[in-house]
Amino acid sequence: MLITLSLNQDLQFRWKKVQEKMSELNAGACIVASTVNIYYLAGFVFTGYAYLPVAGDPIFFVRKSAGINDPKIIYIRKPEDIPALLKLRGIEIPKHILLEGDQLTYNEYVRLQAVFNPGKTSNATSLLRQVRSIKTGWEIEQLRISARKHAEVYAQIKACYSPGISDLDFQAKIEYEMRTSGSIGVFRSFGGNMDIHMGSVLVGENAEAPSPFDYALGGEGANLSVPVGANGTILKPGMAVMVDMVGNYTAYLTDMTRTFSVGKLPDIACKAHQLSIDIQDAIVEKSKPGVSCAELYKLSLQMAEDAGFEKYFMGTKQQAKFVGHGVGIEINELPVLTERSKELLDTGIVFALEPKFVLPGIGAVGIENTFLVTNDSVEKLTLFEENIIELG
Amino acid sequence: MLITLSLNQDLQFRWKKVQEKMSELNAGACIVASTVNIYYLAGFVFTGYAYLPVAGDPIFFVRKSAGINDPKIIYIRKPEDIPALLKLRGIEIPKHILLEGDQLTYNEYVRLQAVFNPGKTSNATSLLRQVRSIKTGWEIEQLRISARKHAEVYAQIKACYSPGISDLDFQAKIEYEMRTSGSIGVFRSFGGNMDIHMGSVLVGENAEAPSPFDYALGGEGANLSVPVGANGTILKPGMAVMVDMVGNYTAYLTDMTRTFSVGKLPDIACKAHQLSIDIQDAIVEKSKPGVSCAELYKLSLQMAEDAGFEKYFMGTKQQAKFVGHGVGIEINELPVLTERSKELLDTGIVFALEPKFVLPGIGAVGIENTFLVTNDSVEKLTLFEENIIELG
Repeated sequence: MLITLSLNQDLQFRWKKVQEKMSELNAGACIVASTVNIYYLAGFVFTGYAYLPVAGDPIFFVRKSAGINDPKIIYIRKPEDIPALLKLRGIEIPKHILLEGDQLTYNEYVRLQAVFNPGKTSNATSLLRQVRSIKTGWEIEQLRISARKHAEVYAQIKACYSPGISDLDFQAKIEYEMRTSGSIGVFRSFGGNMDIHMGSVLVGENAEAPSPFDYALGGEGANLSVPVGANGTILKPGMAVMVDMVGNYTAYLTDMTRTFSVGKLPDIACKAHQLSIDIQDAIVEKSKPGVSCAELYKLSLQMAEDAGFEKYFMGTKQQAKFVGHGVGIEINELPVLTERSKELLDTGIVFALEPKFVLPGIGAVGIENTFLVTNDSVEKLTLFEENIIELG
Repeated sequence: MLITLSLNQDLQFRWKKVQEKMSELNAGACIVASTVNIYYLAGFVFTGYAYLPVAGDPIFFVRKSAGINDPKIIYIRKPEDIPALLKLRGIEIPKHILLEGDQLTYNEYVRLQAVFNPGKTSNATSLLRQVRSIKTGWEIEQLRISARKHAEVYAQIKACYSPGISDLDFQAKIEYEMRTSGSIGVFRSFGGNMDIHMGSVLVGENAEAPSPFDYALGGEGANLSVPVGANGTILKPGMAVMVDMVGNYTAYLTDMTRTFSVGKLPDIACKAHQLSIDIQDAIVEKSKPGVSCAELYKLSLQMAEDAGFEKYFMGTKQQAKFVGHGVGIEINELPVLTERSKELLDTGIVFALEPKFVLPGIGAVGIENTFLVTNDSVEKLTLFEENIIELG
């Protein structure tokens, strides 16, 4: 798994992984139309449908020029063209087809049901999220590239600070460093209500503001239509400055948070920050294939409680009920490290671990890193100074 | 319509507009969950469901703290809680409910169908897109703010240039100006396969590269997972530089394109650019309530043909089949100025008009502006120099 493959070999390996799961479900084909799953199965993005049979190579039915030459492409005008094209190739339409139930809109799904008229459809979304949670060799290489650049950009954050700067301007400077270092800009997430722009900078009390979105922490945001993150707070002495900007330097995202401070922070903040590092280290110590994600969450909560910091753990007014999550093409992949998680760590899983604390009047402290589960432990991909970094 | 209302009065006016259309369809309630429609009906974003009955005020069923106090909020854990809460208020579940068929995922839609079990569901997406195409007084004020800042940032573009800069670095500098001028960052669009980051900068031959996305022009992009826009081209003398960065300075987006050049462009490019301005002016001359959007498209195509420039119109290898589109909370609202459009201009519609030409070996030229349809004509909202602007 950790051997580097060419993208073509890697794609074949991905198809096989999906086909094995399809076979377990007795499904004859998997048809995907979402950008992320098309990118996963094709290695490029097109508008149309990737048709993966339970055995053999996929066919890419493309609606608009893909700008790519691939012998697996067949151009179509509309999905209704597909059945006749399959017939021409001697392919019978399967009785059980997987469609993206959590990604296609209702009308798209119903249209494909009418086109293929299978006896049964099942959810391609959950199957592909499960398969995608175990990264392939090529994907891990992409994550390593993102992690390396992520750390390089974080090394520039101190230089983005100037006294009296606002969180929004500070974030804009970091975004500029990201973009000139190759950030693809686009930040993909699974599910609705996750609109965020390249990540989050939380300064001082704004870290306590609840957000309707499903990120670990909130923040008021600068506009009622994007209620998350920076809100115009001026950076002042004694404030914690949490930087959680995405590592999208390839299509594969790494997640890394570091805490900065204006001047020194009060003792309680330093203690909470050290506790975050300790929780990380304890979880790393336990992590290996077969370990329960729920157990890892409970360990983090237990350590927060033992230190008397549970009221600050993962927020105050609103507390996130997870401490980690898979990352990949999307920022919120499987598994989730939460109390009721049924998932076990497995070789090839890449997850972000983010034990954070929010201290009233001070701000958010703690760290986040992205880890690869290896054969017998985990490897930290995002390597950068973990102590609180003083700005100015 | 053009009177400025408070947001609260404006929201009541929006509910009435939606309720009128619901009434025509004999629907008893409209239930929306998408970020854009929730923002439209509530004036803020939450995770949950906005329930608008055919008469009376809406109820906002909120799943996660909204960070907002509004007497219309009722907190819920899951959508299954809603029917009992409606019953408590003496509200019977209607037999005909509107759900967002083009925005909810299949599984979300089916879940709501099971929760409310109405005899009939219809498409809230198309109804709301139609209603949202006619902007209210408050929305027009937001668009004016965006347009003014859009122009202010475009005045900084010349200063973002330095000899030998790449399109990506040039765009990053413009993005920085945008963000420090109040851009909300997030760029909302309707439909899948529209992943773009804050807009597009197309330089030289890259303007010819097809893209799978539904924007007017393409561009190769810098990563196979985001196949649109800048691709690393170095700006060199004789190249056209088309800047089409979004005006997201409020939740309401303006759309504006300007053409820059490195040194002078060949005559053919200057002619094509002037033709773009002439097409705009001819369309403006004809535009008023009641005019067919299809006729406006045909006029633009006719003028391109008369000048012998049809092979460059809206692309070369791939030609977009529209010359304009509504803008608002999303970049691609109704109406669409395309050959088969059934829509007529109406007072309060805000649309972007973008007659563009792509010249092989030179790049893309032309302009784009955002217009408000008034009672008897149109008003240009995006006011900025329209001739080709020389960089350096």
